[in-house]
Amino acid sequence: MDQKMINDLKEQVFQTNLLLPKYGLVIHTWGNVSMIAPNRQFFVIKPSGVSYDKMRAQDMVVVDLDNNVLDTNGLKPSSDTPTHALMYKHCPDIKAIVHTHSTFATSFAQADKPIPCLGTTHADNFFGPIPCTRALSDSEINGAYEHNTGLVILEHLKNNQVDVNACAAILVKEHGSFVWSNKNGKDAVDRALTLEQVAQMALYTQMINPHMKEANPALQQKHYNRKHGKDAYYGQDTKQED
Amino acid sequence: MDQKMINDLKEQVFQTNLLLPKYGLVIHTWGNVSMIAPNRQFFVIKPSGVSYDKMRAQDMVVVDLDNNVLDTNGLKPSSDTPTHALMYKHCPDIKAIVHTHSTFATSFAQADKPIPCLGTTHADNFFGPIPCTRALSDSEINGAYEHNTGLVILEHLKNNQVDVNACAAILVKEHGSFVWSNKNGKDAVDRALTLEQVAQMALYTQMINPHMKEANPALQQKHYNRKHGKDAYYGQDTKQED
Amino acid sequence: MDQKMINDLKEQVFQTNLLLPKYGLVIHTWGNVSMIAPNRQFFVIKPSGVSYDKMRAQDMVVVDLDNNVLDTNGLKPSSDTPTHALMYKHCPDIKAIVHTHSTFATSFAQADKPIPCLGTTHADNFFGPIPCTRALSDSEINGAYEHNTGLVILEHLKNNQVDVNACAAILVKEHGSFVWSNKNGKDAVDRALTLEQVAQMALYTQMINPHMKEANPALQQKHYNRKHGKDAYYGQDTKQED
Amino acid sequence: MDQKMINDLKEQVFQTNLLLPKYGLVIHTWGNVSMIAPNRQFFVIKPSGVSYDKMRAQDMVVVDLDNNVLDTNGLKPSSDTPTHALMYKHCPDIKAIVHTHSTFATSFAQADKPIPCLGTTHADNFFGPIPCTRALSDSEINGAYEHNTGLVILEHLKNNQVDVNACAAILVKEHGSFVWSNKNGKDAVDRALTLEQVAQMALYTQMINPHMKEANPALQQKHYNRKHGKDAYYGQDTKQED
Repeated sequence: MDQKMINDLKEQVFQTNLLLPKYGLVIHTWGNVSMIAPNRQFFVIKPSGVSYDKMRAQDMVVVDLDNNVLDTNGLKPSSDTPTHALMYKHCPDIKAIVHTHSTFATSFAQADKPIPCLGTTHADNFFGPIPCTRALSDSEINGAYEHNTGLVILEHLKNNQVDVNACAAILVKEHGSFVWSNKNGKDAVDRALTLEQVAQMALYTQMINPHMKEANPALQQKHYNRKHGKDAYYGQDTKQED
Repeated sequence: MDQKMINDLKEQVFQTNLLLPKYGLVIHTWGNVSMIAPNRQFFVIKPSGVSYDKMRAQDMVVVDLDNNVLDTNGLKPSSDTPTHALMYKHCPDIKAIVHTHSTFATSFAQADKPIPCLGTTHADNFFGPIPCTRALSDSEINGAYEHNTGLVILEHLKNNQVDVNACAAILVKEHGSFVWSNKNGKDAVDRALTLEQVAQMALYTQMINPHMKEANPALQQKHYNRKHGKDAYYGQDTKQED
Repeated sequence: MDQKMINDLKEQVFQTNLLLPKYGLVIHTWGNVSMIAPNRQFFVIKPSGVSYDKMRAQDMVVVDLDNNVLDTNGLKPSSDTPTHALMYKHCPDIKAIVHTHSTFATSFAQADKPIPCLGTTHADNFFGPIPCTRALSDSEINGAYEHNTGLVILEHLKNNQVDVNACAAILVKEHGSFVWSNKNGKDAVDRALTLEQVAQMALYTQMINPHMKEANPALQQKHYNRKHGKDAYYGQDTKQED
Repeated sequence: MDQKMINDLKEQVFQTNLLLPKYGLVIHTWGNVSMIAPNRQFFVIKPSGVSYDKMRAQDMVVVDLDNNVLDTNGLKPSSDTPTHALMYKHCPDIKAIVHTHSTFATSFAQADKPIPCLGTTHADNFFGPIPCTRALSDSEINGAYEHNTGLVILEHLKNNQVDVNACAAILVKEHGSFVWSNKNGKDAVDRALTLEQVAQMALYTQMINPHMKEANPALQQKHYNRKHGKDAYYGQDTKQED
């Protein structure tokens, strides 16, 4: 392994993990961000249960796609590591993954409801509703639980033909959200914040008017293309991070 | 063009755009503020998709009322520019415009509901309900979308005889809010914050008592006049910004 | 007038007004605090519509109980001055008054609902429900509006035999809250924050269980006495501000 | 008594009390944290009604399990002291107790509803629903009120066979929450923040889907064991505070 590249990745993963409490998406040690190496042989993830104040870049853990720890400062990787590993293995476009229990998105996951696309805020960022997986069965829970969580996510994406580049988030029933990016960790965390904002507005919208179901599909298509389609015209031509 | 006046306007537009995240009205690069020049030949607007941390006064873009870019630091203007341009062209009293997806106001826009005037907080600042436009048609969405958004706003204002000096805000269905000022950008952003506060209290009021529809019209008239009528007595006699 | 005492009072009123935005009870220039002089001949109040960032202690305005300005730095007193004056005139125990449009308390005022006492948080601080006045009539609105607001408050307190020392807050229908103290301005603002907290929890409580109406009267009596009765045992024996 | 140990305990109790306003769990002087000495002969608790800004470590009060003050800087202990004392006496595993009126947890207490376990955020931290006690009778209220509050808590724990190590929180009807830890004060306050987060999401979940009652029991068991069971694998092997 190229140690400089690994150290750079650790630094990036460390910095993007710090955005989680900064953005108000997590309390305590909850939540984690990972990024995969360009060769897709391994990824770097937050250690398990270490507080954000004490965590350092060198504490990030390097794991391969079969959950073997390749490089660690003596710390175990996040307990959600097998979910990240499975998603990287089966979704070659995904470069970074964020898991949080952010308040409003998790409330939809607990309520077993997808987040409907009710306006352009959602449509600019996610194509279609944010899906919600089925619950894990008792045997899936009592078996390789975190690996099975990944399997249930992949099953939902496949059965519903979700394009991971168009809708970069999913709710896991009775659990929380996984959000990803085909760019980098910062982009994935930014999307996790967008998801939370979209979930909050969806709840309020349905409180104001319980009959609202979905924004006009033409509007959804337009806004998604405006930012993400091949003729996207939002933002500057030069690629930029923000 | 008078370069000093343009630079002053860029500085003002830059500073008022920074108020959007400070007031909690936007996350990421969402939202934009513009101000028109005194001769009403051009306006200055935020560039598209540039983050608030990195944005500088010189990055503001000068555009004429037909959407031609007159002066830029290499950056494209906000994608919402054609909506601003059309409003400036048809509403000669409007001097500044703010667009946001602030949480509560956008929830009303997504719910296809005007924000009713339920008390003096609203009545001090906006006369009558904050209206909500019709949805754009599929062909309006697939055509000159942002220009058509402006047309739908103007159509609503005209059909409902809304006085833009009395009610300086509108919700665009399935989208968000546009707020304006006949004074300056700071005043428009202050009103956008007021709109958000008023929307939040309207939702809570209707949760506490679903039967509340509208405050006493005499109270609405009184409070609006107290602050904005020709015999206004709120604030100091000398005009002041805040 | 004793100028040193007046300057001290201006400083206190200035400092307690600054607590309003610090506590999140107001945005913009909304809200005001006043305190009456020990001889009850005059009170000191915030000037009208001056922003909190620019306001100075010397900008506070001295007014007598008939609304005559006795001492000013050239600024007009708050437009709500006649409401404060009338309350001081008729309630000899009141030493400070706060008016805000804080989010949750104002939502109850807009909903025309008193805030029920649902638990010890409320009972520790206010005895019985926070009452809500009737609406002003059209002629009251179109006449001496702010004076009439005071009359409607006094009418409610008298008709419902409210003890201003036991329940130091009232909601004015379609408007906001007035909160007072028999101690000082700091205590009145602290109670305004308590009112907002109690209003927020009352809304959530009724969302969780729409059948809850009122806490056990024995509990209400006990908690009020624990903090405010003659055998109060909460806090330290030495009187202290906080 | 070992004075150094007492001073260390006072410092710890002081620091953990300061976390309450930092975490947004209390306003004013509300809320209190206590910790028991290793020999379980006495505990250290916040003084009554002293503001968080002015409080110092030496102001913490030492009390024995029969509510006798053993060491004080002239200040009375928290009025809730008899509740803490009784819980320490009857629950030998409890090492620290926190009492707050935090917004969402208190709303459930006021609504007379336990907080159901609706997902893994709850299941990772509390086993089963957060119970809510019965109301105190009039004679319990008018007698040794704070002692009787403790009796009602113990009655609920006993009658419902609640394991205080598995579910370290309870709601007292019409009052607020008590949260404890078998480790230390910091852990108890961290759990109080978790309780507030779990309560907020439970309210939102039931607003989104009023039919949700409880997460799959197998999931609840799994998540609790993952963090707290004898084969716990969340966090690092070395015991660490966070």
